[in-house]
Amino acid sequence: MRRLFLTVLVVACAAPFCAAAQAASAAPARVVVQVSEADPARWTLVLNNVKNLQDDLGADKVTIEIVAYGPGIGMLKFDAPTNSRITDAAKAGVLIQACENTMRNQKLVRADMHPNVTYVAAGVTQIIKRQQEGWAYLRP
Amino acid sequence: MRRLFLTVLVVACAAPFCAAAQAASAAPARVVVQVSEADPARWTLVLNNVKNLQDDLGADKVTIEIVAYGPGIGMLKFDAPTNSRITDAAKAGVLIQACENTMRNQKLVRADMHPNVTYVAAGVTQIIKRQQEGWAYLRP
Amino acid sequence: MRRLFLTVLVVACAAPFCAAAQAASAAPARVVVQVSEADPARWTLVLNNVKNLQDDLGADKVTIEIVAYGPGIGMLKFDAPTNSRITDAAKAGVLIQACENTMRNQKLVRADMHPNVTYVAAGVTQIIKRQQEGWAYLRP
Repeated sequence: MRRLFLTVLVVACAAPFCAAAQAASAAPARVVVQVSEADPARWTLVLNNVKNLQDDLGADKVTIEIVAYGPGIGMLKFDAPTNSRITDAAKAGVLIQACENTMRNQKLVRADMHPNVTYVAAGVTQIIKRQQEGWAYLRP
Repeated sequence: MRRLFLTVLVVACAAPFCAAAQAASAAPARVVVQVSEADPARWTLVLNNVKNLQDDLGADKVTIEIVAYGPGIGMLKFDAPTNSRITDAAKAGVLIQACENTMRNQKLVRADMHPNVTYVAAGVTQIIKRQQEGWAYLRP
Repeated sequence: MRRLFLTVLVVACAAPFCAAAQAASAAPARVVVQVSEADPARWTLVLNNVKNLQDDLGADKVTIEIVAYGPGIGMLKFDAPTNSRITDAAKAGVLIQACENTMRNQKLVRADMHPNVTYVAAGVTQIIKRQQEGWAYLRP
């Protein structure tokens, strides 16, 4: 009888305990990185930051998603000066997302974009959603 | 007797479970948006971001608070080029907060500001407070 | 016997309850502040923000860590225009961290830096780590 109560107790408490503990450092690192400026020097900084995170934590220990929107969309165009580094980042497992809202406003189509890019309806919603799922936010 | 223990157990565990679960995606979206630059192009980007969030998620499904401070305070002045868009955002339910610390430093009084603006003692404290309450953070 | 069960229950549930509650506003404010731009006007804004946070919340009620990396590292050089304000911030209990990755890339050594600076291997990792530990993030 005592054993039954203790078992129920442990099972019932394990869920909240784990959920709460996920907020702490035991959780795998997940980071959403925002690109919202038209400056190629900032794009290079973003790509350096992503590479440093992977080098420092181990590429398999950190999940990274770059989201480019507004004036930042230029980083993901096929003819951007960052083209080869986007290829490298994608090969290294980084998810690279372009905002379709922005593309529509700037008359960009998928053929204009880097082939390793994937798409979200609204970049800003994606950035908020990731944070509310517990991801860290980086705005270089 | 067994029933008593189980009841106590359920009541005692429900609170942490719910609190922990709030961190996940079931929670309604809440976003604090920072404006700390003097550049009107950035103010337009901020207002576009806010509108996109409302269009994408539904204006009743996302709580948005804009906080302007430091060089960003200009966005909320009565004579700012963003005047009519601030009116639109306020009508759409966005809370628009000006930092009174900054206003004091820049010799601004409430009569200088957009009529839809509300006030916080320190913009930077508000931004931190919202994050610690679980809001996402957007720095366009 | 009943007392035993209740005691076990309270002890077992206290941990998740406290952990979950830390996400709410009862937790002490902890903020990681990013410096990633080369602009001295932005460095001044960062230091104003930090001072305002301490003045507003009480210096003993908020833990602040400044992390400078990439083009922002200049703020922590010995000959930076912000030198005396870095000294003041350190005296007021602010932790001021320089990114060693960046220093290596820019051929900076510790003798080039402000004496109150401490060091992290990768600034960007530190910013992510702090957020995943529940700190708020400020990118002025």
